[in-house]
Amino acid sequence: MVRFPLPDPMRRALDLARIAAEWGEVPVGAVVVKGGAIIAEGHNRPRESHDPTAHAEIVAIRAAAAKLGNERLDGCDLYVTLEPCAMCAGAIAHARIARLYYGADDAKGGAVAHGARVFSQPTVHHRPEIYDGIGAGEAAALLRDFFAARR
Amino acid sequence: MVRFPLPDPMRRALDLARIAAEWGEVPVGAVVVKGGAIIAEGHNRPRESHDPTAHAEIVAIRAAAAKLGNERLDGCDLYVTLEPCAMCAGAIAHARIARLYYGADDAKGGAVAHGARVFSQPTVHHRPEIYDGIGAGEAAALLRDFFAARR
Repeated sequence: MVRFPLPDPMRRALDLARIAAEWGEVPVGAVVVKGGAIIAEGHNRPRESHDPTAHAEIVAIRAAAAKLGNERLDGCDLYVTLEPCAMCAGAIAHARIARLYYGADDAKGGAVAHGARVFSQPTVHHRPEIYDGIGAGEAAALLRDFFAARR
Repeated sequence: MVRFPLPDPMRRALDLARIAAEWGEVPVGAVVVKGGAIIAEGHNRPRESHDPTAHAEIVAIRAAAAKLGNERLDGCDLYVTLEPCAMCAGAIAHARIARLYYGADDAKGGAVAHGARVFSQPTVHHRPEIYDGIGAGEAAALLRDFFAARR
C-alpha cells in the first residue's frame, strides 16, 4: 500500500487539536488556507473562552474573515480534524468556503455525512467541495485518548 | 379574534431587527432571557463586523455566555425574529437554550421547521422547547421591506 504524506494544513490542524487537548478542550483543530498559505487557525476552546460557539472551525473562520476584512472567504479552503457539526457546517456555507477537507467521521455530532447533512439539503445556499478521511486515523486517536483519560 | 400582546423580549428583538436594517444588515434581532430579564441581545451584523457567523442569535448567545462566564446557558431562553439557520440552531443546541421562541418562518434558510431540521435529528444532543410564529407578521414585514428597498 502506498501511503501519501498528510498535506501540511492538516498536519497543522492536528497540532492545533493537540494544543486543545493540553488545554483540557476536546481535541479538534482547524486552519483556513488561501493561495497555498495558512491565513488563520483555531482550536476548540468553548470552556476556556466561555463561548459555546468556539469550535475550531468557527474560531478559524472568524479569524480569517477579520484578517481579510470580508465576511466571505472566497477562494479559501478549510482543513479540520473532525467532521463539522451543524453549527460549523452552516458557518462554512455562510463563509463560502471553496473546499472542505476533514479528518475523522463523527457519527454522533457530525452534520456533513451524518445527522442534519447540511450540505445535502436542497435549500443550502453554498456547498463546498468536500474531501473526508484526511488524517482520520490520527484525528480519531487524539479524540479517543482524550476521552479515555477522562473516564 | 382576541389579539395577544407580544411578549416584551420579542418586542425588543423586533427593535433590534430594525436597528440592523438601519445599518444595512438583513433585519433579524435576538435576545437571551434568564429569570424574566433580558441578559444579552444582538442583531444581524456580518457585513459591518466582517464575520460570517455574526447572526443575531450567535451575537446574543456569545454575549450571554461571556456575561454568565459559562459556555452553557442553562435556564436561558432565546427570542429571535426569524427561524434560525443550521449554524444558529447548532449554536442553540450547544448553548443548551431551554426555550426557543421565533417569529417568521424561513423556508429558504431556516433549519428548524425546514431544510436540515437540526432539532429533529435523532443525534441532536439538546433540543429546546420550540414556539414559533410569535411576532411573525411584523418580523416578516421588516424583511420584506428591507429586500424590496434593495431591488
